[in-house]
Amino acid sequence: MSLRSLGVELHCRCIQTESKRIGRHIQKIEMIAPNSHCEETEIIATLKTGQEVCLDPEAPWVKKVIQKILPRYESNKTSFC
Amino acid sequence: MSLRSLGVELHCRCIQTESKRIGRHIQKIEMIAPNSHCEETEIIATLKTGQEVCLDPEAPWVKKVIQKILPRYESNKTSFC
Repeated sequence: MSLRSLGVELHCRCIQTESKRIGRHIQKIEMIAPNSHCEETEIIATLKTGQEVCLDPEAPWVKKVIQKILPRYESNKTSFC
Repeated sequence: MSLRSLGVELHCRCIQTESKRIGRHIQKIEMIAPNSHCEETEIIATLKTGQEVCLDPEAPWVKKVIQKILPRYESNKTSFC
């Protein structure tokens, strides 16, 4: 759930995160680094329907979705091992 | 450089990408998956100054910036090796 629709930007935008694995419905991901308005990393996904959903930045499935959006990420990672 | 300021959203937003390593100036990253309006993955960073800059999704330094924003990303990756 996002507070953006309420016009609130000067503190954390996420008040709860999505627990379901909704990776295939995601069109866009915003990653917001901790800052003076919010001390947590926030990840906000925009679904193909246009709906905004907050994701847990520590959830393994969220990291996988981010890796999948990045082109050739997997092949680069393999070369580290 | 972003086309968003021109009000253009129905095709790719990036017309060029930043080559300099500007990771420490980044406040927010938007990752847009390929879609019917743009067949490339687009990564748009918002700097601490508010300026929007497109990044190359295949650049190793861009992937490192994304990993750094994600909490505990490095420790998870190590466990795969």
